[in-house]
Formats: sequence, structure tokens, C-alpha cells
Amino acid sequence: MASVIPASNRSMRSDRNTYVGKRFVHVKNPYLDLMDEDILYHLDLGTKTHNLPAMFGDVKFVCVGGSPNRMKAFALFMHKELGFEEAEEDIKDICAGTDRYCMYKTGPVLAISHGMGIPSISIMLHELIKLLHHARCCDVTIIRIGTSGGIGIAPGTVVITDIAVDSFFKPRFEQVILDNIVTRSTELDKELSEELFNCSKEIPNFPTLVGHTMCTYDFYEGQGRLDGALCSFSREKKLDYLKRAFKAGVRNIEMESTVFAAMCGLCGLKAKSTLIKPQTF
Amino acid sequence: MASVIPASNRSMRSDRNTYVGKRFVHVKNPYLDLMDEDILYHLDLGTKTHNLPAMFGDVKFVCVGGSPNRMKAFALFMHKELGFEEAEEDIKDICAGTDRYCMYKTGPVLAISHGMGIPSISIMLHELIKLLHHARCCDVTIIRIGTSGGIGIAPGTVVITDIAVDSFFKPRFEQVILDNIVTRSTELDKELSEELFNCSKEIPNFPTLVGHTMCTYDFYEGQGRLDGALCSFSREKKLDYLKRAFKAGVRNIEMESTVFAAMCGLCGLKAKSTLIKPQTF
Repeated sequence: MASVIPASNRSMRSDRNTYVGKRFVHVKNPYLDLMDEDILYHLDLGTKTHNLPAMFGDVKFVCVGGSPNRMKAFALFMHKELGFEEAEEDIKDICAGTDRYCMYKTGPVLAISHGMGIPSISIMLHELIKLLHHARCCDVTIIRIGTSGGIGIAPGTVVITDIAVDSFFKPRFEQVILDNIVTRSTELDKELSEELFNCSKEIPNFPTLVGHTMCTYDFYEGQGRLDGALCSFSREKKLDYLKRAFKAGVRNIEMESTVFAAMCGLCGLKAKSTLIKPQTF
Repeated sequence: MASVIPASNRSMRSDRNTYVGKRFVHVKNPYLDLMDEDILYHLDLGTKTHNLPAMFGDVKFVCVGGSPNRMKAFALFMHKELGFEEAEEDIKDICAGTDRYCMYKTGPVLAISHGMGIPSISIMLHELIKLLHHARCCDVTIIRIGTSGGIGIAPGTVVITDIAVDSFFKPRFEQVILDNIVTRSTELDKELSEELFNCSKEIPNFPTLVGHTMCTYDFYEGQGRLDGALCSFSREKKLDYLKRAFKAGVRNIEMESTVFAAMCGLCGLKAKSTLIKPQTF
């Protein structure tokens, strides 16, 4: 069948599954279409047990964060902000059949918890991306909201991540595939960073900046904390490391941003950025 | 003050904090004793807010697993098995003030959830080890119980881990400390492996073996699954990888064992082993 899309459009972003202006969430797995059923194990959802397009087809914003309670609170807040008439009690955990993650939906906004650390958010993202793909969602924006340790900035400052870096201040995520290491980009959507930054200006007393976010595999030894069960470095070494991080553009530290940036980037989530409120460090 | 311990005892295991036959859980952090208060953030416990020796001083066994619900079920099972008279309702989540982990205690048995992946269990272990240290617990045995993917073994087989290996089949855990990589041993207690294996023989229809457990950073691409959002390898490459793993002694795959072995080994938890019931793979 001949394409109905003008040639000028067809030539743009053909690798990103764009279709008459709509950008679908896509998977990069040739086996998935061959499967009779796709079970999203850790979300307690599946293509045969649930009508995913009916349940999730209207999703436009996905907000993810570590803590289940906070994501529920966020969903209730959004429900109020969006002025929906349904009772708050109707906002129920969609993943109630499992205790791995929690998921709440209010209108076009989906809020999901991801636990702590790269492996935990990675499992959730694999299944969330498949969910959005099966539901034929398009033009989806995903934002990670979380706490983090700030570097050289006042406590309470919100950091909008422009790029996620690893413990060596490199903008990369090293994914082990079988026994091969593949390096992936961790750049986040610039347009969304600017939009979020502009929003912050409209709110009084809402200190916000755009900067690099460092993602570590560990909360204690990896982030220079002196109060873990194990600590083999001096206070001076810790300060030297944090100073070098600051010099490299890092403004906060957390534990999920590199894989979040890498996976969302590969799967065409329309725009993405992490938004983090640093606490004391 | 002169030591009251006979010289013959003092010379034994001085690096392991042994004290007249008792083996205390120890931390390896010179800063910890200088702190006025130690807050175990993710467990919602602290040295000033809680009487840790009174609450936990009698702990002899710690069982950890990913899922909060399963750890509650395990605690209730142990409560019944140990024949305690208190009502089941009295077994309450000690970490109810936080939604990061769940913790239940019945007699000398502590059951704690750790979420999914190395970073998540690492945070819990740092704070658990400090908790056991502050509570002056001694001769503590820790066992990780969890599900996993089996390699070349019948579904339902229990694998007792003798050694945890990484994605490259190496018996090591690479800990990033600031921006240095330190390699740690992942050997587990041989005596406990044997004890557990002997126990299994006493139970009818309880297929059990001792083997290596492979620990990955990822559930999908890292474990050769063909049903993730991303999959860049062929079915043949996957099978070749799993065959090589089997040849190297690996009998199951999960996501926490290397850091579990490394941290418990460093902090003198009396004996340790992971016990895993593989599901289909």
C-alpha cells in the first residue's frame, strides 16, 4: 500500500516510529510480536488477562519514583489538580496483585513506584515500556521524581537533570547483555528540561537549576557516606571526590538516572527528564 | 585496662571480633563509633530513638528475601514452627514507618525484605549489619531465600549457593567506592551449605543441590530473556551463554547474591548461604 504520509514527513525521524505526527512508544525486540501472550510479571498485568489499550491507551504522562507511598500521594495530588470528579477512593493500586511495584492512574497521568537502584527501576521500565507499547500510547512524556543528595547547592533546591553520569562522571550507562558490556547514551530531552525550568520560575520560592545528575550503584560507599557498615576512605578523600564531581557539572547524586535515561531514549518516550529535590548531603 | 581474656583465646581470630567464643557482628567503619547517633534511615530505626539491644539482642537467625509479603508469610510460618504462644497479630512490621523495607521478628528469627537488585539489598545490608552491631548480637546466621531462574535443572529444585558469581562467571563482586573499583570475595560458608543440604535430605520430595549462583544487574537483557522491551541477541546466543554458564558450575540466576556474600563475609556474620528455589527458565 502506498504511504499516505507526505514525503517531507516520512523522511523525518523514521527510526523513531513517528506516524502522522504521533510518536508511539516502541520496543526493540523482534521476538515480542511473535509471542502469543506477553505477561508483565512484576506488574501483575498481561496482554491476555487485561485490555491494555482500554486501560492505558490515553496515558500521556508517566511519573515514576522510588517509594510506593509517595507515588500514591502524587497520584492523589494530580487527581485533585486535574479537577476530576471521581472520589479519591477510586484511585486504586493497579498492581495490587504483586508487592513489587505500585501503580496509580488518574486521567492521562500514570504514577508508578520503582524501588531503589538501577536493577529495580530497569525491571519496571522494561514492563512499563511494553505496557505503553501494547496499549498503543503515543506522545508520552516520562518524568522521574525523587529525592537525592545535593552537591554544592542549598538543601531544598530542585535539580532538573540535563544528563545523567556514572560514578566516573561519564555520560554513559553500561548495560551487561549476556556477557557483553554495551555502552548506552544517558542524554535527556533538552526541550522538556527547558519547559520544566520555565515552570519553576512561575512558582515563588522554588529554587531550581539544570545540571548533571550522578547515578551510583550504592548509597553508602559509592556516594562517599561516612556512616555505612563499611567505610574505607577518609573524610578528605570523600570531599575531594565530591569537589571533582561538582567541577564536572554534577549537582546531585541518586541511584536510577543512567538506566532511566538510556532505556527511555532507546524506546521513543517522547521527552524525558529527571526532576529531583536534593536533601542535605 | 588489662584484658580479662586468656591469651590463648585472644590470639584466635582477632580480626573477626571474636570474644570468648562469641562472634559479634562487626562494622568496618572507624567513623561509626565517633557518631553521637546512628540513624538507620531506610529501616526507620536509630540508636537514640530505639533501644536496639533490647529489641534485637537475642537475634540468632536473619532471613532475607525480595518480597515484603513473602517475608511476612515466612515470619508467620516460623512463629508457628517455633511454637510461640503470642497471637499472629502481634507479629507487626518493625519498619512500618517507612515503605522501603519490611521487617518482622519472632523469637530469635528476624525476617527482612530487600527489594530487587544489588543496590536495593546493599542499602538494607548496610543498615541491618549496623543494627546487629548496635544490638550486640553474636553468632548470627543469615540466609537469603528467594526465587531464581534455574539452568539445566528441574523446576522446583532448591539450589544452595556455594559461591556467587557475576555475569562473567567470576567469583567476585566489584564494589565502586567513590571512583575506585574494589573487588570483593563472594564465597559463602561451606559448613552452613552442608548443614542445609543435610536438612534437605530429611524432607521427602525436596530436590536440592549445591551449586554456583549467578548474580546479574538486570532481569531481561542480563539473563538472556527474549521478552523484555529490549532484546538484541538471538535465541542461539542466549542458549550458548546459558550452556557456558552451566559448564562453569552455575545452576541458577538471581540478582542479589554477590553483594550479599561480599558484605556478610566482611562483617563477620557467623555463617551465610543463599537458598534459592529455581522456577522455570
